[in-house]
Amino acid sequence: MKAIDSEFVENLAIGASLLGAGGGGDPYIGKLLASEAIETFGSPKLIDHLAVPDDAVCVMVASMGAPTVAVERLPSGDELHVAILSLQRYISKGITHLVGLEIGGMNSMLPIVSAARTQLPLVDCDAMGRAFPELQMCTPSLFGKSTSPMALADESGNTVVIDSTSNLKTERIARRITIEMGAVSYIALYPLSGKELKETMIPGTISLAKDIGYEMSKTRAKGDDVLNSLLRLTKGIPLFEGKITDVDRKTQDGFARGTVELTGYGSCLKDKFKVSFQNENLIAELNGRVVATVPDLICFVAPDTCRPITTEELRYGLRVVVIGIPCDFRWRTERGLQLVGPNCFGYDLKFTPVERMVKQFVR
Amino acid sequence: MKAIDSEFVENLAIGASLLGAGGGGDPYIGKLLASEAIETFGSPKLIDHLAVPDDAVCVMVASMGAPTVAVERLPSGDELHVAILSLQRYISKGITHLVGLEIGGMNSMLPIVSAARTQLPLVDCDAMGRAFPELQMCTPSLFGKSTSPMALADESGNTVVIDSTSNLKTERIARRITIEMGAVSYIALYPLSGKELKETMIPGTISLAKDIGYEMSKTRAKGDDVLNSLLRLTKGIPLFEGKITDVDRKTQDGFARGTVELTGYGSCLKDKFKVSFQNENLIAELNGRVVATVPDLICFVAPDTCRPITTEELRYGLRVVVIGIPCDFRWRTERGLQLVGPNCFGYDLKFTPVERMVKQFVR
Repeated sequence: MKAIDSEFVENLAIGASLLGAGGGGDPYIGKLLASEAIETFGSPKLIDHLAVPDDAVCVMVASMGAPTVAVERLPSGDELHVAILSLQRYISKGITHLVGLEIGGMNSMLPIVSAARTQLPLVDCDAMGRAFPELQMCTPSLFGKSTSPMALADESGNTVVIDSTSNLKTERIARRITIEMGAVSYIALYPLSGKELKETMIPGTISLAKDIGYEMSKTRAKGDDVLNSLLRLTKGIPLFEGKITDVDRKTQDGFARGTVELTGYGSCLKDKFKVSFQNENLIAELNGRVVATVPDLICFVAPDTCRPITTEELRYGLRVVVIGIPCDFRWRTERGLQLVGPNCFGYDLKFTPVERMVKQFVR
Repeated sequence: MKAIDSEFVENLAIGASLLGAGGGGDPYIGKLLASEAIETFGSPKLIDHLAVPDDAVCVMVASMGAPTVAVERLPSGDELHVAILSLQRYISKGITHLVGLEIGGMNSMLPIVSAARTQLPLVDCDAMGRAFPELQMCTPSLFGKSTSPMALADESGNTVVIDSTSNLKTERIARRITIEMGAVSYIALYPLSGKELKETMIPGTISLAKDIGYEMSKTRAKGDDVLNSLLRLTKGIPLFEGKITDVDRKTQDGFARGTVELTGYGSCLKDKFKVSFQNENLIAELNGRVVATVPDLICFVAPDTCRPITTEELRYGLRVVVIGIPCDFRWRTERGLQLVGPNCFGYDLKFTPVERMVKQFVR
């Protein structure tokens, strides 16, 4: 068991911003909220997933909606607490452990805010190993676990509880409600027993994200090559380096959707690179040829510092490095790809692991 | 206390179809459901609103959405039961009495279905004295009562509970959910104590609707003038008689919206009449001049038989009589008009009681 202090939060914010694959919301706002909650309520405890008793009542927490809107309408931190209380009321069971839905951006920080406030332990795991835009795209779904009962809350104190027969239906209903709540909502969902949690979640991802942040800071302080260190830690592959020449982005159906286009420098001046996103980066193409697809992670980082860049920060003229990171092995199974493969986002593409795709393309 | 038998249902269906002012859903389907429920579970009890104990837990039931869709996707009767159970679970109190939300069309019948099935008494009152398209348009809203907690259910067993800070917000969230549920949902809402019910609801409307149906049948059987009898019973005013020349109707934002145009016969061949509707008929114009507006009732009936005609039945060539009926006095107050006046539906019109408007226009 570890206590989550402000240094932990600082490093986690960096790692989680990377693993967000462009999505999950701005980690800076999340960091401010987490730091404030720790100052007010004390450091929450982070426990290993194996330490959770079988009969524990675990609930996931997150924000839902378009990150582009979340950076303009800042949460107070109360919204998520209201959602947790609403779900607890509905399930008529005392919640014993909190869990993050996704280890991406702001959604890595909000569970810390709630854990500090409720004094409940936070479990070192998540349901995506990255960020995904939709609720059913969680490892418990692979094992037939239900997203609902699920509670949503907004900053005015409106709450809604969904109890649905399918995870896709829960996503669709929740998305409509989120739009009505102003394109962002705060959610408590996937109630799982401790036993189910241990069987279905991706373990150790909070520690992993924190370690990534820590190693990057350390390497940078030493003056060593941060990108190399980052690629080593994440088994990542550099895909492209260039300058953004166009960003086409809209907030649509409660998501931030769009594409970003890049041009190479120097000898690569003729190379064109394009990334399509729906909150998270989904498909990367070099000169019209696909080089990486969801569920593998496609991440933008700043040259030199390797600071991760979220989709809402992308803008004309920004210089970036794009890297591909292999996703958790569960997502590369047949069932995993049925839930989060390129087809699930409307792309008629077969998934090929990024490390194999890049090999083909170098040859 | 009366028992609701099949003859009661038959007469109620006619009266409620008229008071639906074009909306509230097809009463024929509701009648089939009510008759089946009475056959299966026995006759439910109808009790006077003054007989409800102060500490009773009263809940309103209805369907929500576009009546045009409800006639194509028939309910099984289970949907509403699921919504009632869901709301009961959320409020953690045993429901003691059921109440109709509106005395219009199918929504006059669904409370009978639920009362038969749950064996709970049905209270002789409703929250509109007619039908209105939106949830906040209820007399309890006039007294500051909350629409929520409110439960919605669909035919697949999906349920949602809304607990909102304003009745308008509840309507908006519920409308989005209803659209996702396929443009029709089944709802349990406005939990009221018996004391609140007696203070805020319009009493006697189920009996009134049944009496209208009964009188119309009796008059028709005797061969007397049914229209005259109908106008006497409802204090109604004939507005127009003619043939439908155009119907512009779409299912939009979860409502049936549109306009219907009519032309007179014989000496009135040059007269044009137009009615705009959003589920219910809202505004009636004769030759471009407004002759009746919501909240007064604008109703289509068949010539001779005076059978009420709902908006989804309107079609080219149909001969109809249009009548205006004064609404309940509560809706004609300043607060009432703020909630259901023409402005609430986007019309820049001042409400004038239909009986006064027609006098002006005859002069």
